[in-house]
Formats: sequence, structure tokens, C-alpha cells
Amino acid sequence: MKININIAVVGLGQVGIYLLNELNTKRKEIELKTGKKINVVAVSARDIKKKRQFKVNKNIFFKNPLDIFKSKKVDILFEAIGTSDGISKKVVETALKNKIHVITPNKALISKHGDYLAKLAEDNNVNLEFEASVAGGIPILRSIKEGLATNKISKVYGILNGTSNYILSEMENLNDNFSNILKKAQKLGYAEPGNPKLDLNGSDAFAKVRILSALAFNTKISKHKCLMQGIEKIELKDIEIANQLNLRIKLLGISELKNNELFETVHPCMVSKKSYIGNVHGVMNAVIIEGKPVGESILQGEGAGPGPTSSSLLSDLLSILRGNIKKPFGIPGSKRKSIKCYNVNNYVNSLYLRFEVKDKPGVLSTITNRLAKYKISIKRLIQTPNKKNNKATIVIITHKTTELNSKNCLSIFKKDKDILKFPILIRLYN
Amino acid sequence: MKININIAVVGLGQVGIYLLNELNTKRKEIELKTGKKINVVAVSARDIKKKRQFKVNKNIFFKNPLDIFKSKKVDILFEAIGTSDGISKKVVETALKNKIHVITPNKALISKHGDYLAKLAEDNNVNLEFEASVAGGIPILRSIKEGLATNKISKVYGILNGTSNYILSEMENLNDNFSNILKKAQKLGYAEPGNPKLDLNGSDAFAKVRILSALAFNTKISKHKCLMQGIEKIELKDIEIANQLNLRIKLLGISELKNNELFETVHPCMVSKKSYIGNVHGVMNAVIIEGKPVGESILQGEGAGPGPTSSSLLSDLLSILRGNIKKPFGIPGSKRKSIKCYNVNNYVNSLYLRFEVKDKPGVLSTITNRLAKYKISIKRLIQTPNKKNNKATIVIITHKTTELNSKNCLSIFKKDKDILKFPILIRLYN
Repeated sequence: MKININIAVVGLGQVGIYLLNELNTKRKEIELKTGKKINVVAVSARDIKKKRQFKVNKNIFFKNPLDIFKSKKVDILFEAIGTSDGISKKVVETALKNKIHVITPNKALISKHGDYLAKLAEDNNVNLEFEASVAGGIPILRSIKEGLATNKISKVYGILNGTSNYILSEMENLNDNFSNILKKAQKLGYAEPGNPKLDLNGSDAFAKVRILSALAFNTKISKHKCLMQGIEKIELKDIEIANQLNLRIKLLGISELKNNELFETVHPCMVSKKSYIGNVHGVMNAVIIEGKPVGESILQGEGAGPGPTSSSLLSDLLSILRGNIKKPFGIPGSKRKSIKCYNVNNYVNSLYLRFEVKDKPGVLSTITNRLAKYKISIKRLIQTPNKKNNKATIVIITHKTTELNSKNCLSIFKKDKDILKFPILIRLYN
Repeated sequence: MKININIAVVGLGQVGIYLLNELNTKRKEIELKTGKKINVVAVSARDIKKKRQFKVNKNIFFKNPLDIFKSKKVDILFEAIGTSDGISKKVVETALKNKIHVITPNKALISKHGDYLAKLAEDNNVNLEFEASVAGGIPILRSIKEGLATNKISKVYGILNGTSNYILSEMENLNDNFSNILKKAQKLGYAEPGNPKLDLNGSDAFAKVRILSALAFNTKISKHKCLMQGIEKIELKDIEIANQLNLRIKLLGISELKNNELFETVHPCMVSKKSYIGNVHGVMNAVIIEGKPVGESILQGEGAGPGPTSSSLLSDLLSILRGNIKKPFGIPGSKRKSIKCYNVNNYVNSLYLRFEVKDKPGVLSTITNRLAKYKISIKRLIQTPNKKNNKATIVIITHKTTELNSKNCLSIFKKDKDILKFPILIRLYN
């Protein structure tokens, strides 16, 4: 690789502009660590006039990022627009075809088009790096690709969405409901003001799970959604009850090999307050890797925000400048196999069930009989009457049962007039 | 780099023999991930007949490792003997001079001769890799060198010695004293049967601190020992009292920049039971990095044993086979500066002090007066009389004070006939 490296940054939102500043202030350090002199030769954003934290050099500004390829010689391009398709995909595609290395934090793009883009990168003998796409500043992808490279990984899981974790933590801390805490999160910049849905419904975490699976198990990126639930339906009441049971609700992303089939899921879990994962609070992310021979490895850090994201983007940059590995997913695309999806019906968990019922004779036995019919056995049952309105809350912790069983069992409760709302189900983690 | 790579493994103790088995069983995977075919062409140990977990091919056995260089063409050599000087150093030196890449888990060697050996490696344009020397299977060095490469790190600290952490955890769990738990640790292979001193007196952790400092701060390996204490003097009584105070005793290794001076220390700390570090139990290791812009990053995993160590040794191997970075400490040796040592006298902490005294009037005021004389103010004081023998235990938690103050203040207690033994001091973390 030559000494002088030309860089383009496409997308000047929070991440792009922070990155640009880091690139400018850390040129000397980057030269010291890699022997390369970097030079930002092009930047692009929709609106040059938008108010930004750091100044943009107007002489290198492009309104249309695709124009960069026509007039500038670029060696490495940062894509920081962040959509799964459209201009993000077009820019990355064009860059790779022009033998330009690409670095991106865009998990939507990689989880959807990663295989195709990786092939483009390999065919053109350039890098496609996306460390920042999973768990912000935590060097998790590099750890799987390099630090734990020859381990046989059986499971990767953790807290992959800082927004959800912040909301769950604050609901518990402040004893306040979902929508109030969401507003607070939006105010603080932890949740998107316009449309926070992707963070809250599990999509964001699921995209990360997919990228982790492909790296951990050397497979193509899966297309299945085994089971995806977000935190939107978590009520303060469940957080309070969890608390009494020495449990805590966390949104976990899990990728696991079960009988050589891939099981990927994102859903809220009740975890022990004493567990490691139960003590990862606020916007922190944590990833746990179970592998052989290394045992259990944990990586924890800030999962979002321009600082941590830039940290990962620059680690990708240094990797490229040092001439490091070329394969986006660690091994050649041709060697990455498709993998069958594990049947979610066979997924086994203990369950937390909450029923809101009329407080009258026979209701409890209706519930327990129906559970028994589906061979779901009860480990713990707590009935709390509300004398005032003649209602009661029944919380049941079950022994382990399959997803199929619980789905079938719960579906019939819909029809019952004494069960006041559809029962709440939260899986217990292990 | 050519396709067929010849490998030598020197030292066939627990780690060496496990590694050898991994190299044999993972050849295909390594080829898949790097495109290289590895071939173990030489092994060496003192005694060919020693009973080992895996079989050794006698046709490639060398009693004297230095003979390997005369008769075999080796590309990469693993040194797994483990001494800081002598044959370990000689083998590594000779290999590097012969343009052979070296991989070692030997923290004693690297912390003592790392600068010299790194220069040899750089001069001969080969790699010297030592990921396994710090925190076993945790990819901490690679994370600092690569994953967090452009962060400004201000502090690295954590639990770096699994043996000590196991003993402290078990003393608390089993309510048993140091020497009994040490025996158990030796039986289980967590502490060396012959001479466990290096693990227990802080030396082992200090060697790791030195390596971490050099990488985190881009400096030469320091020669100073600011402050090193092990866990040998920790009594069950202090663990019990800590427990009552919602604290827990942990042996921490800390490396920090204070006013651009390097502060390195290993000593027992009282940490909150609610803190992350207070919940790292048994043989686990954990490293916490404070950096900008990434924030706080935590890496936790198994810190010792042949499995985790082999995981790191193989990650080094893959890095070399992929043709990755050459500089052992991330930047050229000529750019790594020496750094002044922070004056330990200025180190500031709250202190836990335990006095065993005669239970008679005036003793408490003697103690408090002397503390006052050195401007050490008391935050909390608990006096527990033992009516039977007319003695008492006085525990004092102080406000923050300097090392110099506490040293001067405590030294005078030696002379007192009512103070039955030299007071116990354990620093509080933060």
C-alpha cells in the first residue's frame, strides 16, 4: 500500500461528523501506528448548511456522494448514512467496485446485504469492515475474527441494544412507565426522536445477532427470524414483580447452535439479579461468547453514541492501513455455508406468566387446569387480590416447557371472559 | 509468505502439550482461515518420557531446543518454558535472530526483556506475539493494539491473577483461612504446588501490569515497582469484616497516567460488593480500560489454564499467518518513550485499618490522636470488644489520605505495647 491514503466520509450526522473530527485530530497518531498519512479528500451529506458540532470543509463537500467517485481518487470510504438500502447500498457497492476499501457502522445494510457486499469486496480485493455495526465501541467482531479465531463457538449472546437497556434500567430505577421513560430517552438522545421503533421492537438487536452469527459460526447471514420481540409491551408492573422475585428484565439477543441448526432470537428475558448480565445497566452493551477452549468470554462497553462508534471505525481504518486481513467475515465467502434454522417451536424455557383476572372462585383452577393440559408444570404461583375492584393478579413461574406448548396453551386464554387481558409472557433466561 | 509453514513448540508442560494437540486438530480450520498449511516440525522438552496428556511424536523431539535451529527450517516458534531468563530467553533470542516469528505466553520474559526482544523482532522483520501473557484467553492486548487503537487510554486495571482471586473468593465462600484455601488451590491446579509465591505476592500480576502499560501508553516497559503487595497477609478476619461493610477484597493491578507520569501498582483493595469488579469471582480475570472516545470497556474471561492460553496462542498464530502487524508493541520501538514514575507517596486512598488492642481506657484515644496528628480523618469506626481475653478489635475507615501520610502515621504504632500487632491496612478502591 502506498504511503498517502485518501479518505472520503459519506454521511455527516452525529457519527460522521464526530469521525471527521477524529480523523483530523489523530492524523499524527495514525501515522505513528501505521506508517500511513491520511487525507480526507471528500465529504458528503444531504445538507451542507445543517448545524453541526464540527466544521466541514466546503471545498471537499459533495451533495451527491456518487459524484465523489467521478472526481476524486479515494482509497478508503466511510459510509455513515445508515439505511439498509437506497443510497447507503449504492455508495458502498460503487466504492467496492471501484476497488475502494469500505468501513461502515451500518448494521441494517450489513445484516441485509452483507453476503453480497462481502463478495464484491473479495472479488475486488479490498476490505469491507463493520466493527462499529455491533455493540458500538466494543471490539467484538475483531475479537471473534482474530482474538478468539480458532475457538469452537457454541453461543454468542448479550445486551445489544443500548436504548432498550436504558429504558428497562430507568423504568426500574425511577419506578416509571414505558412511555415516560421513552420520552426521557429521546430527550437525552438515547432513542431516536422521530421513529424509535427499530430500537424498541428488537429489529436493531436482531440485525446485530445476524452479523454475530455469521462470524461466530462461519455461515452465510441468515434470513429467518426465529423469534423476535422487543420491549414495547413491558409494563412497569412486570418490572416490579421481577424485582420482588430477585429477577430483572433484560432484552437479550441470542445466537446459538442447537443440533447444528442456527437459533437466533431477540426477546425480553427475566435474568437473576445476581447474574453478570443482570448487572449491565443503562446504555451499556455486553456480549458473552461461549467457546472452546477459551471458556466464557465477556466484553462490555458503551454500545452506542458517536464516541464509541468512532473508536470502532478508526480501529477498522488502522486495520486496513496496516494491511490486515481482507475477508469481511474472516473466511472466504465461498466457504461460508448456509445453515438450517432451528425450529422455534422446540425452544425451551421456564416462563413468567402474569394473568389479570376477576377475583372469583374457579378462575385459578381454570388457569392451572389449562396449564396442566399442556403439561406445563408450575414452579411458583403468587396470587395478589385487589379488593377494591374485585380483581386479582396471578403470577406463575413455570418449569421448562417448549415454545409450541406455551403458544398453544396461551392462545386459548384469549377466549375467556374472566381473564381480563391476554396473559403476559416473559421467558426466564436459563 | 509461502503456503507451507513450519512450526516448533518448545516446552511441553501443561500449556505446550495442549497447544500441540490444538495445532494438530485444527490444521484444516487454520488453513481455511489463513490459506496456510501448518506443520509441526520440532518439539522440545527436558524429559521426553514425562507422562503427558497427549502423545508426542518422538521423531521430531529435541532435548536441547537450541539444536532445533541447526537442523530444522522453522518459520514460527512457540516458547512455552516460562522462565524470565535462561533457556527461555536464549531460545526466543536465537529464533528472532534467525528470522523466525515467536509466540509466547511468558509474561516474566516479556515484562523483563520485552523491549530488547521487540527490537530484535523489528530488526529482523518478524513478529513477536504475546497475547497469552496477560489475562489468558482474554484478547486484551490485541484489543488495545487494534480494537481500541486510536483511543487515548488513561487507565487500565483489573483482576490479573486468577490464583489470588480464587483464594480470596474461596476464603469468603468457605469461611476458611488463607493456608487451607491455598492447599485446596494447589490440589486443583490453580496454584503451583512447589512455589506459589509469584502468584501470591503480586509479582505475576505486576508483570502483566507492565506489559499493559507499555501497550496502553506507547511507552517502554517500566522498571520501577511503585507499590506491590500480594494477598499473603490477608486474614479471614478482614474478609469477614469487609463482608459486614458490604465490601469485598480483590487483588487489583492498576496502570494509570497521573500528570503524565506512570503509576503502576498491584495491591489488595476493598471494593464495593455492588461494583462490577467486586463480582468477578474464582479464577476469572477481568480488565477494564478507560479511554477516549470509547468510554469504559470491560473484558472478562478465564485468565489461566491451558485452554484459554492456547486460545490466545493460536490467535497470535493466525495473526502471523494472515500477515498482520509486525510491531510487537503496536508502534515502532524507536517511538516508544521512557516515562517518569509517579511518586507513590502521593497516591491517595481511603483506608481500611484494623487494630488489635488491649481493651483498656486510653487506647482508642491514642489511635485517634495519632491519626489526627497526620491529618487522617475518620469516616467510620467500629470497636468490637472481646470480653474473654480483654482485647478489642478497632476497625477504622478513613477519608482519603496520601500514601506518605499513612506510612508515617502507621510506622509509629510499632512501638506501642497496647497495640498488640502492627495494624492491618487495606486500601479502598475509589
